[in-house]
Amino acid sequence: MTLQGTSIIGNENGSGNESPIHGINPASGEILQPPYPSATEDEIKRACKLAGDAFDTTSKLSGKDRAAFLRKTADNIEGIVEDLVLRATAETGLPEPRIRMETGRTCGQLRLFAGLVEEGSWVDARIDQANPERQPIPKPDTRSMLRPVGPVVVFCASNFPLAFSVAGGDTASAFAAGCPVIVKAHHAHPGTAELVGQAVRHAVRECGLPEGTFSLIYGSGRTVGAQLVQHPVVKAVGFTGSRAGGRALFNLASARPEPIPVYAEMSSVNPIFILPEALAERGEEIATGLHGSSIMGVGQFCTNPGIVLTQASESAKNFASSFTEKMSGTGAATMLHSGIRDAYEKGVEAHEGIASVLTLTRHNEEAGPGQCSVGTAVFSTTAEEFLAHPELTNEIFGPASLLVQYTDHGQALDVAKKLEGQLTATIFGTDDELAKNKELIAVLESKAGRLIFNQFPTGVEVCHSMVHGGPYPATTDGRSTSVGTGAILRFSRPVCYQNFPQGSLPDEIKDGNPLGINRTEN
Amino acid sequence: MTLQGTSIIGNENGSGNESPIHGINPASGEILQPPYPSATEDEIKRACKLAGDAFDTTSKLSGKDRAAFLRKTADNIEGIVEDLVLRATAETGLPEPRIRMETGRTCGQLRLFAGLVEEGSWVDARIDQANPERQPIPKPDTRSMLRPVGPVVVFCASNFPLAFSVAGGDTASAFAAGCPVIVKAHHAHPGTAELVGQAVRHAVRECGLPEGTFSLIYGSGRTVGAQLVQHPVVKAVGFTGSRAGGRALFNLASARPEPIPVYAEMSSVNPIFILPEALAERGEEIATGLHGSSIMGVGQFCTNPGIVLTQASESAKNFASSFTEKMSGTGAATMLHSGIRDAYEKGVEAHEGIASVLTLTRHNEEAGPGQCSVGTAVFSTTAEEFLAHPELTNEIFGPASLLVQYTDHGQALDVAKKLEGQLTATIFGTDDELAKNKELIAVLESKAGRLIFNQFPTGVEVCHSMVHGGPYPATTDGRSTSVGTGAILRFSRPVCYQNFPQGSLPDEIKDGNPLGINRTEN
Repeated sequence: MTLQGTSIIGNENGSGNESPIHGINPASGEILQPPYPSATEDEIKRACKLAGDAFDTTSKLSGKDRAAFLRKTADNIEGIVEDLVLRATAETGLPEPRIRMETGRTCGQLRLFAGLVEEGSWVDARIDQANPERQPIPKPDTRSMLRPVGPVVVFCASNFPLAFSVAGGDTASAFAAGCPVIVKAHHAHPGTAELVGQAVRHAVRECGLPEGTFSLIYGSGRTVGAQLVQHPVVKAVGFTGSRAGGRALFNLASARPEPIPVYAEMSSVNPIFILPEALAERGEEIATGLHGSSIMGVGQFCTNPGIVLTQASESAKNFASSFTEKMSGTGAATMLHSGIRDAYEKGVEAHEGIASVLTLTRHNEEAGPGQCSVGTAVFSTTAEEFLAHPELTNEIFGPASLLVQYTDHGQALDVAKKLEGQLTATIFGTDDELAKNKELIAVLESKAGRLIFNQFPTGVEVCHSMVHGGPYPATTDGRSTSVGTGAILRFSRPVCYQNFPQGSLPDEIKDGNPLGINRTEN
Repeated sequence: MTLQGTSIIGNENGSGNESPIHGINPASGEILQPPYPSATEDEIKRACKLAGDAFDTTSKLSGKDRAAFLRKTADNIEGIVEDLVLRATAETGLPEPRIRMETGRTCGQLRLFAGLVEEGSWVDARIDQANPERQPIPKPDTRSMLRPVGPVVVFCASNFPLAFSVAGGDTASAFAAGCPVIVKAHHAHPGTAELVGQAVRHAVRECGLPEGTFSLIYGSGRTVGAQLVQHPVVKAVGFTGSRAGGRALFNLASARPEPIPVYAEMSSVNPIFILPEALAERGEEIATGLHGSSIMGVGQFCTNPGIVLTQASESAKNFASSFTEKMSGTGAATMLHSGIRDAYEKGVEAHEGIASVLTLTRHNEEAGPGQCSVGTAVFSTTAEEFLAHPELTNEIFGPASLLVQYTDHGQALDVAKKLEGQLTATIFGTDDELAKNKELIAVLESKAGRLIFNQFPTGVEVCHSMVHGGPYPATTDGRSTSVGTGAILRFSRPVCYQNFPQGSLPDEIKDGNPLGINRTEN
C-alpha cells in the first residue's frame, strides 16, 4: 500500500502542509518518508462536522450491522499485516513477532466487540411494565437501555502502535457502542497509523456507512488535540499516554461549556508485594519472573512492575541480588522514540539523585548516533525512606525497578496506603498468607483496578472481566476499563422510554424480546 | 424529638457557632428555632476522617447487612413522620399530604435499594476461567465485580426536603453501594434535615456500623460545601440544585489533584412537542393535563414542563387560549424560599423584557409581608424568535411556561436540535405521528435522559428502568441516573481479581455462585 502522508477526513485526504512530522527509526535515527503535515483547523472542523452527521446513522445501526463493520475492519487490517510489519517495526523499533502478535490482538479485540454487540445483552435493557390500577397514581410503562454518547476522539498511544492506536481498544469499543470516531495519530508511528486508517476507511465504505464514521488527524496534541477535545460535537475522549498530557486534555474537557468525559490512562507503578513465606519458598523463581516482566517490551508497558516490596530478611537480600544480577545482565535495548528515552533517563537520574536510594545496577551502554537505546536500572531503599520521598512513587516508564524493604506488616500497610491510584497491584504469597492479609487486599483494592495473585501484571487479557483502569492518576476516570468488553460502557449512556408504543421502541426493549437478549423485567 | 441545632459529626454533635442560619416559614416569614451554626473546618475534617475510617467497614459489608441498614433507616424515618410533617410543612410551605407522600417515597427508595443489594446481581459479576493450555500464552483466571468508590458527599435539594435530601436517592444509592455519606444540609430546611439525620444516626448505631458511616453538615455551599468536595478522602459528589451551584462544585472537583466525579442535577426546561393530529384531536385534554403538570408543586419540579411546542394552526390557538385561561385562573402559591421566589421573578421579568415574546398571562397578586408567594406566567413566541434568542432556553424554576409555535416539521427539528441537554423530552401525538417522527425522536434522544409519549414529565417513577439524568446542563454527567436502582452505578467502580484462590475472593465471584446472583460466566 502506498502511503499518502495526509490526514484522513472522511472520504477526503487532508491538504495541510504545516509542521510536517516524519516517522523516525529509533534503532537507527533514519528519517522515514512520507512527511505527515498537521491537519488544518478547517480540516478538524470538517472531521467533527462529518462525525456529527454520521452519528445520525451509526447510532441507529443494529448490533448486527455494527458487528459486520467491526469484522470488516479486522479483516482489512489482517489483509495488510505484511505492510504493518515492515512499517511498524521501522517506526517503533518493536520486533516483528510483537507487531504480528499485536495485529492479532487488535483484530481479536474488534471481533470480540463484534460478538458482544451482535449478541446484544450489553445494553442493560430494563423493563418496568405499566400498572394503570396502582393507587394513588397509575404506574407508567418505562423501559431503558444504553445508547451511544456521540462522536468520540481517540488519541493513539505510543507504546501500542496497533492495539491502543487507530483501531485499538478505544476505537473498537466506541464503534461497537455506535459512535463515530476521530483518531489523533501519534507522532511516533504516523505511517502505521495511516495504514490502519486506510483499512478502517475501506471498511466504512464497504459497509456503506457515512464517511464521517471515521477520520484520522495528524498534528500535535497541544494544538490539533486541543481543538478536537474542545469541539462541541465531540462527546467523549479516550487517551493513553503521559500524566501531563492526559491531565491537560482532562482539564480542557472539564472547562468546556458542556464538559465531557475523558478516559485518560496515564501513570502507574504497579506495586508488587512479595510476602515473607513466598519469598523464602521461591524467591529465585519470583526474581526470574519479575525480571521477565520488567524488561518485557523494554519496560514500555503501562503495567510494568515499577515498585517491589519485600520484608527485610536474608531471603529479601538474596532476592534483590538475584534480580539485580538478571537485570544487570540484560543488554541495552531500543525504546520507542527519543521522547520516551529522554524521560526514562531523567527518571533514572532523579532516583540516583536521592541520597537514601541505593543504585544496585545502572546499565549504561554507549548508544550509537540516533539510537534510542537504554539499559536497565535497579534501585533499593527502605520503606521509611520511601514514605519520606513521595517523588519515589513517580513512574519511570522503562526497564527500571525500585526495591523497597519494609520492617514489618504494619509498615507494608503504611506503604500501601501511601500509594496513588494504580492500574494493578500484585501480591505474591502462599494461599495462607493471602488469607491472613485481608487488610492489605482491602487497601490495594481501593488503589487499583486489578488485583493479581502470584502472577505478573504485564500481559493484559482481553476478556469480559478485565479491568484495565484504576483510580487517579492511573486514569482520570476509575469507573471504567479501557481493555475488555466493559470498555463499551465508556461510550454509552442510559435512555428511558416512557409510555412508548411498541412500534416506536428499539427492538432491545420491545415486548416479547425479539432479539432474545438478557433483560431485567419487572 | 427535640432539635439540637447542630451538625452531626459521627457520634458527636457539632459545636460551631459561626454564621447560624434559621429555617424560615415561606408562607409567613416566621423565623423557626433553633439556629443552625455552620460546621467548623475541624468538624468537616473530622467528618471526612471518620468517613474514610468507616469505609474500611462499610465496603466489606455483605449485601444483607447493607440491606438491613437501609431498612432500619427507612423504619426510623417512618417512626418520626408526624415530626417531619410538622417541621417540613413549616420550613418549606409544602402541604401536609405532599410531605407524607414524600416520606413514603423516601422510605420506598431506601427499601428498593435494600432489595437490590440483598439480591446482589447489581455488581455485574464477570468470570473468565483460566486456560493453562492456551497457546501461545496461558489464559489467566480473571473475575470482576463492582465495588464502592469511597466516601460520598451529598448536597440536599431545596425542592425535595426528604426524597432528594438527607436520606434521599443519592444517600440511599451510596449506602447501598457500600459508601459512607456526608450530607450537606440545605439552608431552607435545616430542621427537617436534622430530624432525618438523627434517624439515620440511630440506624447506624442500631446496626453496629462505624460512626463515620454518616455525618450531617450545616453551612454554606461556598465554604463548607467547597471544603467537603475538596477533601482528599471524598471520592464522589451528588448534588441537586442550581446550574451555577452545580457547575461550581464540578469545577472544584475537576481541579482537585485527584479529580472526582460530580453528579449534579441542575437545569432542564423539559420540552413538550405536541404534534398536529394529537393537537387537533385532543388539544383541550392536553391543555388540562399540561396545566396540572405546570403548577404541580408550584412548578418546583426538575421535570416541570417549561417549553411547549405546537405547529401554528387554529388548534394551536385554541390550545394556547385554553391553557392560558387555566394558568391565569390559578391562584398565587407559596414557593420554597425567598431565593427561589426571587429567581423566579427575575426569570419571568427577563422573558417579559424580550419584545418578540408575548405575555399571555402574568398573575401578579400582592404577597403579604414575608410571604414567598408567586403567580403563574405564560409566554408565547414563534420558533424563529425562539431560535434567535438563546436566553429563552433558560430554565425559569416555577409555574411559568413558554409556548412556541413552529411553522412546519423542519422548523420543529431545528428547535429540537438547538435545545441544550434535558432531563426529559415529551412528544404528544397519535401512534401514527410518532412512527413518522423517527428523526425527532433521534434528536430528542441525544438531548434527554427520558423520552415520554403522551404523558407528562412530572412524577418520576422510582424503578429499575428510570433515567433521571441527561446531557449537560441537565446534569454534569449524562452517563447516569439519580432516580431508580441504576443510581447505584454512580458510586461503584469495577475491580478485577486475577488468579485469586477461592477463599480470598468475594462471594459474588466465587465458583459455584454461593449467592445465586446473575453473572456473566465464560
